[in-house]
Amino acid sequence: MANNKPLWIWFPGDREIWLGNHFNNRRTERGAMFPPFWKQDSHWQTVEFSKEFTLLQSDTLHIHVEGIYNFMLDGKLQFGQPTVFHLPAGRHKINIKAHNLSAPPSLYISSDCPDSPVVTDSSWLATCEDKIWIDENGVAHGSGIYLPAATWPGCDDPAVLPSQFRLLRTQPQQATSSHPLETTEGETATLYDFGCESFGYVVLHGAQGHIDIYYGESEAEALDRDHCETLDRLDLPDGQPQEHRIEASKAFRFVQVVGSVQSISMLSEYLPFDQSRSGSFQCSDDEVNRIWQVGARTLDLTTREFMMDGIKRDRWTWSGDAIQSYLMNYYLRFDSEAVKRTIRQLRGKDPVTAHVNTILDYTFYWFNALGDYYLYTADVDFVREMYPRAVTLMDYVQGRLTDEGLAIGQPDDWVFVDWVDFPMHKRGILCFEQILLYRSLVTMQQCAELVGDHEHHYGEMASALRAKTDELFWDDTNKAYLHAYEDDAAATDGKLVLNTQITKFPNMMAMLYDFADDERRADILHHVMLNESVPAISTPYMRFYELAALCQMGMQHEVMGEIKAYWGGMLREGATSFWEKYNPETPASPRGCDGIGRAHLEMYGRPYGKSLCHAWGASPLYLLGKFYLGVTPTEPGYREYEVRPCLGGLSWMRGDVPTPFGPIHIELSEKTLSVTAPAGIGIGHIHYGDHCADIQPGQTLNLSL
Amino acid sequence: MANNKPLWIWFPGDREIWLGNHFNNRRTERGAMFPPFWKQDSHWQTVEFSKEFTLLQSDTLHIHVEGIYNFMLDGKLQFGQPTVFHLPAGRHKINIKAHNLSAPPSLYISSDCPDSPVVTDSSWLATCEDKIWIDENGVAHGSGIYLPAATWPGCDDPAVLPSQFRLLRTQPQQATSSHPLETTEGETATLYDFGCESFGYVVLHGAQGHIDIYYGESEAEALDRDHCETLDRLDLPDGQPQEHRIEASKAFRFVQVVGSVQSISMLSEYLPFDQSRSGSFQCSDDEVNRIWQVGARTLDLTTREFMMDGIKRDRWTWSGDAIQSYLMNYYLRFDSEAVKRTIRQLRGKDPVTAHVNTILDYTFYWFNALGDYYLYTADVDFVREMYPRAVTLMDYVQGRLTDEGLAIGQPDDWVFVDWVDFPMHKRGILCFEQILLYRSLVTMQQCAELVGDHEHHYGEMASALRAKTDELFWDDTNKAYLHAYEDDAAATDGKLVLNTQITKFPNMMAMLYDFADDERRADILHHVMLNESVPAISTPYMRFYELAALCQMGMQHEVMGEIKAYWGGMLREGATSFWEKYNPETPASPRGCDGIGRAHLEMYGRPYGKSLCHAWGASPLYLLGKFYLGVTPTEPGYREYEVRPCLGGLSWMRGDVPTPFGPIHIELSEKTLSVTAPAGIGIGHIHYGDHCADIQPGQTLNLSL
Repeated sequence: MANNKPLWIWFPGDREIWLGNHFNNRRTERGAMFPPFWKQDSHWQTVEFSKEFTLLQSDTLHIHVEGIYNFMLDGKLQFGQPTVFHLPAGRHKINIKAHNLSAPPSLYISSDCPDSPVVTDSSWLATCEDKIWIDENGVAHGSGIYLPAATWPGCDDPAVLPSQFRLLRTQPQQATSSHPLETTEGETATLYDFGCESFGYVVLHGAQGHIDIYYGESEAEALDRDHCETLDRLDLPDGQPQEHRIEASKAFRFVQVVGSVQSISMLSEYLPFDQSRSGSFQCSDDEVNRIWQVGARTLDLTTREFMMDGIKRDRWTWSGDAIQSYLMNYYLRFDSEAVKRTIRQLRGKDPVTAHVNTILDYTFYWFNALGDYYLYTADVDFVREMYPRAVTLMDYVQGRLTDEGLAIGQPDDWVFVDWVDFPMHKRGILCFEQILLYRSLVTMQQCAELVGDHEHHYGEMASALRAKTDELFWDDTNKAYLHAYEDDAAATDGKLVLNTQITKFPNMMAMLYDFADDERRADILHHVMLNESVPAISTPYMRFYELAALCQMGMQHEVMGEIKAYWGGMLREGATSFWEKYNPETPASPRGCDGIGRAHLEMYGRPYGKSLCHAWGASPLYLLGKFYLGVTPTEPGYREYEVRPCLGGLSWMRGDVPTPFGPIHIELSEKTLSVTAPAGIGIGHIHYGDHCADIQPGQTLNLSL
Repeated sequence: MANNKPLWIWFPGDREIWLGNHFNNRRTERGAMFPPFWKQDSHWQTVEFSKEFTLLQSDTLHIHVEGIYNFMLDGKLQFGQPTVFHLPAGRHKINIKAHNLSAPPSLYISSDCPDSPVVTDSSWLATCEDKIWIDENGVAHGSGIYLPAATWPGCDDPAVLPSQFRLLRTQPQQATSSHPLETTEGETATLYDFGCESFGYVVLHGAQGHIDIYYGESEAEALDRDHCETLDRLDLPDGQPQEHRIEASKAFRFVQVVGSVQSISMLSEYLPFDQSRSGSFQCSDDEVNRIWQVGARTLDLTTREFMMDGIKRDRWTWSGDAIQSYLMNYYLRFDSEAVKRTIRQLRGKDPVTAHVNTILDYTFYWFNALGDYYLYTADVDFVREMYPRAVTLMDYVQGRLTDEGLAIGQPDDWVFVDWVDFPMHKRGILCFEQILLYRSLVTMQQCAELVGDHEHHYGEMASALRAKTDELFWDDTNKAYLHAYEDDAAATDGKLVLNTQITKFPNMMAMLYDFADDERRADILHHVMLNESVPAISTPYMRFYELAALCQMGMQHEVMGEIKAYWGGMLREGATSFWEKYNPETPASPRGCDGIGRAHLEMYGRPYGKSLCHAWGASPLYLLGKFYLGVTPTEPGYREYEVRPCLGGLSWMRGDVPTPFGPIHIELSEKTLSVTAPAGIGIGHIHYGDHCADIQPGQTLNLSL
């Protein structure tokens, strides 16, 4: 079907690769550029766009290209770079080759005719220049891939080149308070407080001469000129006070300005979202309400062109962080475009030469995120787009397995798992990685079926890996998956030795990723997850999985206590967004006027090294939506879904869970349950205690309990 | 040693990859952009430069970067992007990370101190961001490659960014004649003749309104508005005649201008060279002199930023063409920089995903060109620079061999060999490709020894391949290498079937690439090369090897006849540069006023499709230098060399063969031989008939014959 509104089109993935390079290079540390240390792909420089169509009447095309280009009509190259082209009625094929070193070659064609089939949209094909060649007889050969051209919603203005298109908007914001600082050297220094964690561009008013700006996510950081993580220094002309917008965005709540400046404000930068299609949560416990709201603020701040880890640091896309952001997003904004952008960006392009972010586990999360995305959206077009790159990434993975088909960290791989405060080796064959790989293979089997690939047998590989992993790592005495097979420095025969350490990591993944059956899940719950001799998890990153596993086993009451203790603890420390790491045991004093204990701010050996707005800190969004409001799609894209609400110790709650059809509304008290389903969605199966009921699209169902 | 003149530095290969993308995208066909169809690599976006040094006194650095960057001194990141930096005396390490999406990140540091060790040159190290990562303990890991930073001679002006640096110069040139053309529609049209094949930018004088420009390498082409290969159309303002330089360079001798233009001239664009260090040739036969001169003109025109195939078409870098240009260049300009640039550009960067230019044979020529370069220059630094990429390219080759270790065209490979006018399959296992691979392995063995790589055993592979190839393809009855093992459509057992066709291709390569021993060479000469039932070669491309093989067997007299017939034939047709293809049998009339028969101009089914200035047409430069003046290095870089002059039917000749030490001058008549060797060169061994003598550096040796 022709889409009458033309869109800019490009080769799939290229826009994200290119924008990702800009995005991931914006981090600064004490004013110095701080680029990521993994490989950054480049967009394809030369792309061919093509479409075959029939015109019932003659048409006039208006052609816009970001790049230099040629224009072939029905196999014949036309002169130069036509911007207006008249087409007679009839069957035609247009091929346009565009070339651009600096930004992805992009095409926009509009037409004078209504309903023209020629205007650019994803009905055009795009191919890159990789390995297509014309022999001496003029015959084309090679393994070029023709894909539906990619677009972004809203990228539809011919006057705005795609490289200039902005996903984000800004709005002015004032400081909530300011006060002058005492200085020893007669400078003018002022501390501004914007009231909560923010992201954007400081604007100086009435500024002149040399000005230093020190940013702080905490008051202590902004006051510490020598150790704050981000700062700006600028030299404005003397004698003519002016307004000046700082060029580079920063994350901050507090700003110390030194120099001749009348006042400051900021332009807050944000990704727009649709409130009416968003998730919501309210309950009888106001602390939990505030946890949900601060979680939403945290996820909104870290959801930008891509889903980043933290807004101060690293400001990078990390696959392990992103998969959690995606899951939270399905319960907050359901912004599929942001998810797709991040998945494309993290994958980069072929050939694969390293794991995603160089980390073995992060490659597996990339596959799993694709599976999650399909479950929540049923967007088979995106699966079809990513599938070839998923296959080559899996080829890369398989080329680096042991002879027995097990995942192992090769010398140039980073095996991350988690930051741990207890001794834990990460070398050799980790049970944790096998379970992630298993889930990746299951996802690939599902994708293969969706796109009709019968050549790969990912399902069989998954089964074989599961059997092997069970055989190698399951300890039936301790009812736990053991840690690893690793080199023993003492052994001379080169054999791997079982490391019998028990950690929560492989065990909770076995519970969550349908690796363990119900009986074994129950065993793991009692012998590992609730076993106090198993070392505790200290990062919100892995607490995400830990608490989800507990909720999955019906422990919402206990998890609510954890949420209030851990996330409530951060709020009591003065957090206005959730942190990269938090230890309730850390001594709270001395405190800044923002209430945050100084000792909480340090990380990586730097006094303000910790990110105070970190996406993975927002996991209550996911937990409350999925395990308390209790909504999960059971068929892709909510063609079928479950509602298993659970008060978990609250006396009432109400909220919305977004879906592709709009939000499902749920209200639950000890006496009544009310569920409202949006029109267009599939059948919902409601389970509450012994109550079971189905809900039809567009219905409200009230149950007295 | 510190070099007091700083140079811009970058990651090795990046500048050529980036410039090559611009270079190879300049081709147009009838005004339409015509990009190459093979994969185009991109430069590394983020590069780290580093150097450790000791300052005896404090120093002030001036830092210029093409890109954004950070500056780390002794492990500590400095604020912002410093342009001036004061360093105290002592031991220091500087690390600078630079990032640039649009052009290779490049660095230039000058110093206020004379003899500062900090100024940028190839004593700095460069590394790209591929697979280097910092773990949670801050420890760096990965397989980053640290290489001496790359530079180009002359790229040393801090005010001119490397992306703006120009290797080429221009000079104004006037048409030698012009005459008005009769037109039917009352237009003003003029035909300009620039006297000989030229390359550059047309300049319009007194021009206004709409102007059409038709270019011709021949008069017929410039006159044929509908079929000339290149043209420009422009719209200048009416009413104010102005001077206008055409933006895009073109290849032409004739220009037809239609529109209101007073006159035209051109800016001829050329790569400067040093005449005093160049080759020369003069002899008793004036036709041969003109062949040498037109050959020199042809090679100079096609030697630009890189060595291209032809200046009208394709204007691309092709490895099979380039290896011949390199060899001619060693006898004409000895421009090592142009050779290095082209070798780097053709190789691109890792990972390898396709053969060079997608062609199996062209990958092998790339290796062989590296070996040739080392033989002529002894430039071990360049071998060291290229070796890692040579290894990965050979890994790619080896990953695609048959189980028996034989080269075979995979489905996505192009197997080229030559354009042939007779039936010849190019599928299966071609003897020709095995001999090229053999020579590649021999070259790799030599390079491995040079860089001290004891892990690869290329020499053993070469020997095994030679034995296998002899066994499979040598036909002792016919005294020839047979063509191929190929699929037989009729065979059902999947076995390959010997194709017993005899062509010159594998046989002459066996002679030239030290694959056949002396006895077999003599056999091949008589049973294949001089056998009239073996199909003739029709391209100057493969005639290069054919005539070299004949000269190697002492047939200079016969080859001289060929040179005069073939290249003299082109001159008699009016060539002012040598052509892509020439068939003396082609009927000469009708002719244009330039003397060229119309039928010679056509190729690829287009009336002016043939390139009339094609590097591979200039091979007499190589033949006359190597086999008549007779100079060949026998040890790398002329540390030892032979002079085996041969008149080949001429009554006298004299000339210069360039070497890294300056030219060797040779004068030969039937009575006397005089050889003058430059200072610094190694020992020369002179052989002429029964005369043998050694010549010392800086000496002149006169022999009476």
